[in-house]
Amino acid sequence: MVQEELILVNFWSSPFGCRVKIALEEKGIPYEYKEEDLFNKSPLLSTINPVYNKVPVLVHNGKSVCESLNIVEYIDEVWSDRSTSFLPSDPYERSQARFWADFIDKELYEASKKIYRCKGEEQESGKKDVLRILKLVEGELGNKPFFGGDNLGFVDISLIPFYSRFYTWETFGKFSIEEECPILVSWAKRCSEKESVAKSLVDPIKIYDFILYLNNYLTK
Amino acid sequence: MVQEELILVNFWSSPFGCRVKIALEEKGIPYEYKEEDLFNKSPLLSTINPVYNKVPVLVHNGKSVCESLNIVEYIDEVWSDRSTSFLPSDPYERSQARFWADFIDKELYEASKKIYRCKGEEQESGKKDVLRILKLVEGELGNKPFFGGDNLGFVDISLIPFYSRFYTWETFGKFSIEEECPILVSWAKRCSEKESVAKSLVDPIKIYDFILYLNNYLTK
Repeated sequence: MVQEELILVNFWSSPFGCRVKIALEEKGIPYEYKEEDLFNKSPLLSTINPVYNKVPVLVHNGKSVCESLNIVEYIDEVWSDRSTSFLPSDPYERSQARFWADFIDKELYEASKKIYRCKGEEQESGKKDVLRILKLVEGELGNKPFFGGDNLGFVDISLIPFYSRFYTWETFGKFSIEEECPILVSWAKRCSEKESVAKSLVDPIKIYDFILYLNNYLTK
Repeated sequence: MVQEELILVNFWSSPFGCRVKIALEEKGIPYEYKEEDLFNKSPLLSTINPVYNKVPVLVHNGKSVCESLNIVEYIDEVWSDRSTSFLPSDPYERSQARFWADFIDKELYEASKKIYRCKGEEQESGKKDVLRILKLVEGELGNKPFFGGDNLGFVDISLIPFYSRFYTWETFGKFSIEEECPILVSWAKRCSEKESVAKSLVDPIKIYDFILYLNNYLTK
């Protein structure tokens, strides 16, 4: 078999890059990790992601795939022989998984930024939005152990990286996600027991410190 | 065979709904069309799309699928026996098609709104953004007849509905897309010769009149 070249170009705190790590770990695919300095982006990044110049990028045998959900789906399709599949086989179930992963993608990060970047009314509206999003998602989980059923699926992989940020959101916003969304927090703890997730999630305190640093950096 | 129930809930001017129409026409799938009054949304809409309360929604045997690209992919997967496939079979090619369709989805509509909703600097920035997006997309097309190769593919279906809006953008913005992106305009004309597209595209003058009306309505 030809030696595969597989490189993940990422920045350590990215919840989007974390999705890719979890997907690769879940499938048991070895890869090389390349840290990108987001404060001093390399010329490589604009070569492998000329449209957005952003991480994460997966470079597979010299060809790059961008945008985290797209990368996770790519991994699912290329390594479809592994014991686990992220997307279900039924087209309707697939459409639902894609819908919720895309919803999280479009809504959660932007809403959450208001909690730690803004104050007063804007911060409150960020909290409200984040809770609205998490409650909708919690409703979709229902009483299943994972969004993917008995295993991590596309929606689990899309959402779980943000669990590392709950501490930051809660500390800045002075609220408890567990009080508001207990079922979702139980799900997050269950996910964290998976080796693929435990290995990939970033320490919440490191995220908090980094966001403090970033807030200072941005207001300089 | 069990009679299929397939309903497209849409608003006539939506470029997103137009994608679904083209996909259904391309595959030769009969469906029922239900026009939604966006100025007075029906209770049905919030039932079939509780998260966004937006069109288009495809209701298939009582189950709804939301978000236009998700719907197009659903159609491709459910009716995979038809002679035409929107997504290529190779995973890398699929990832590229998804990337570009998603790029159009995320960027073009929002940027274009600035052209007809704003004036002065904001309008100029909208024009600049739209041309940047269209040129990037034109570069991806290269010298292929369609993004999908010899046939309409996922990216073609994602982009072509906006062709109906070129007249509006050009009239408000006082610029010529054909001068800036001649290859892309040739592609759009080629698409328009397809029956599925010709039947689905909205008259550019109707779009222009509607946007004038909407601008007045919004500033009331």
